[in-house]
Amino acid sequence: MIIDCHGHYTTAPADLQKYRDGQIAGLKDPAYVPQKANLKISDDQIRESLEGAQLKFQRERGTDLTIFSPRASAMAHHIGNETTSQNWTQACNDLIKRVVDLYPDNFVGVCQLPQSPGVPPANSAAELERCVKELGFIGCNLNPDPSGGNWTAPPLTDKHWYPLYEKMVELDVPAMVHVSSSCNPNFHATGAHYINADTTAFMQFITGDLFKDFPTIKFIIPHGGGAVPYHWGRYRGLAQDMKRPLLPDMMKNNVFFDTCVYHQPGIDLLFKVVPRDNILFGSEMVGAVRGLDPETGNYYDDTKRYIEALQLSDAERKKIYEGNARRAYPRLGAILDRKK
Amino acid sequence: MIIDCHGHYTTAPADLQKYRDGQIAGLKDPAYVPQKANLKISDDQIRESLEGAQLKFQRERGTDLTIFSPRASAMAHHIGNETTSQNWTQACNDLIKRVVDLYPDNFVGVCQLPQSPGVPPANSAAELERCVKELGFIGCNLNPDPSGGNWTAPPLTDKHWYPLYEKMVELDVPAMVHVSSSCNPNFHATGAHYINADTTAFMQFITGDLFKDFPTIKFIIPHGGGAVPYHWGRYRGLAQDMKRPLLPDMMKNNVFFDTCVYHQPGIDLLFKVVPRDNILFGSEMVGAVRGLDPETGNYYDDTKRYIEALQLSDAERKKIYEGNARRAYPRLGAILDRKK
Repeated sequence: MIIDCHGHYTTAPADLQKYRDGQIAGLKDPAYVPQKANLKISDDQIRESLEGAQLKFQRERGTDLTIFSPRASAMAHHIGNETTSQNWTQACNDLIKRVVDLYPDNFVGVCQLPQSPGVPPANSAAELERCVKELGFIGCNLNPDPSGGNWTAPPLTDKHWYPLYEKMVELDVPAMVHVSSSCNPNFHATGAHYINADTTAFMQFITGDLFKDFPTIKFIIPHGGGAVPYHWGRYRGLAQDMKRPLLPDMMKNNVFFDTCVYHQPGIDLLFKVVPRDNILFGSEMVGAVRGLDPETGNYYDDTKRYIEALQLSDAERKKIYEGNARRAYPRLGAILDRKK
Repeated sequence: MIIDCHGHYTTAPADLQKYRDGQIAGLKDPAYVPQKANLKISDDQIRESLEGAQLKFQRERGTDLTIFSPRASAMAHHIGNETTSQNWTQACNDLIKRVVDLYPDNFVGVCQLPQSPGVPPANSAAELERCVKELGFIGCNLNPDPSGGNWTAPPLTDKHWYPLYEKMVELDVPAMVHVSSSCNPNFHATGAHYINADTTAFMQFITGDLFKDFPTIKFIIPHGGGAVPYHWGRYRGLAQDMKRPLLPDMMKNNVFFDTCVYHQPGIDLLFKVVPRDNILFGSEMVGAVRGLDPETGNYYDDTKRYIEALQLSDAERKKIYEGNARRAYPRLGAILDRKK
């Protein structure tokens, strides 16, 4: 079984964005009363949004299941206030649930969290619990920078985040560390902010003691771990200079990288340096990079091709495609076993 | 000749830091009158600070010349005000000049700029001119985030920076894009902030039209180009989706990466994807990572070993070690020719 751990609903029907546009317009309208979404999206519209995109690519590329969450760039936790974010998040998560219900063999749900700058992470716990217990989701996307590029929240290793971590541990679900769009003009969202956040989170994990306090908590750092594999020697050396644990010991059962790296030399490097127990297959399709690579004739984000080109044993390939995902998402196993 | 394009005076005699400490203490003292430095540093103290460090490593590793600038993490442009930064910068640059005068065969100078959050970059031009015309320096370090991790300045492609760029072009000197320490607890300086800034700058260059406005301006993006080579496919794909120039065409005579990547697989990747006309040998010694790699028994930052392990032709190796540096630093040639 080939499990793609990183897919966002980037092709959601237009009515979702219409609701969002209303929310955003309402922020400037003193008469606007925040409302929960009441989307007019039919099952057929959902099918249509997926059949020519994610499902088509699953078939063409030969992947089986996508761990699927709301569009990351649209989370935009910096817009509006806590209510804005709560309502928007519920709408997005409920739509993911409908996708999973329509295509239970193709998708498993992961939720967006209702974060806002300055709002305690504890306030995200209820939505996480709803998504896991009521909607059957298996993880969440955690934005380390709800301010959207101003980086005003404390580091992920700060006790600020602990109430949410306690809920994650209680529910046995991981978080993918994933920022959203950037309102800081310095940071292009998918070209700088995403990658920077990945790198930043990893360095926080090196310097902090989070996994002493939460030995079973799990994080996925997407986009191949940001800059980390390329600078693996730098990170090994920094950890060593600071007398911190070896990187594989730090990552062990707590930190995973996905394979959203869109060229063969990058994937080769990832597999050369990062322990293979800590790599999850992922493509982020349909996502940040949608074109065909003229050098190969294939889609940049068809990351399965790069994995297939590696010299992996069958057992290793199975880990990357399925086994490690079962470890990173403890609730995935029960869902897969139920499917059988 | 082997030219290391990236060295900072991280081992400067203690009197420099004593002056800085006085500056910083003065910020809290209403009676303090900002003063220019009057350092009590003897030539012997300078010799001593270098003989057991940078000069020793030059000898041991077989490199000839280091393009040498003040300690990057100590620039800390976010501390104090414009006067603080002016005085501190002059002190640091003057000390580099003394190093170059003592060891003209081993060092060439590059200056720190007197930046401050909210202060127009035009105000840095005079110190740049002084360093180039009076001190004989061949470039500058430009901090894209003088706020130290809050990223409050406009992107490098914004007209905000143009007055400084005009001076760079007039003087024919490049800038190494180099942030300093971070006062944002999210960002470990050398482990996150530095690498993020490199990645951020490159993405700005992809999306902006800076090199149309300044066809001859030159930037060095240090630390191997941040995350860029690892995500080369992502950046190629993003540029393609946005109908921007091909990366090699964008970089051509304007953007160079150094080789401050502290393990063989990273260097292998760099040389596999980035045009070899755009790579400058650099080590950042004595810098961010000072230990011995237990996997190799050598210093992590002994990057010459990684280059030597590549299958480069003599002509290519000469470009990486010298030829590309002559292109990136147009004033270097005259200095090298004078030495002959």
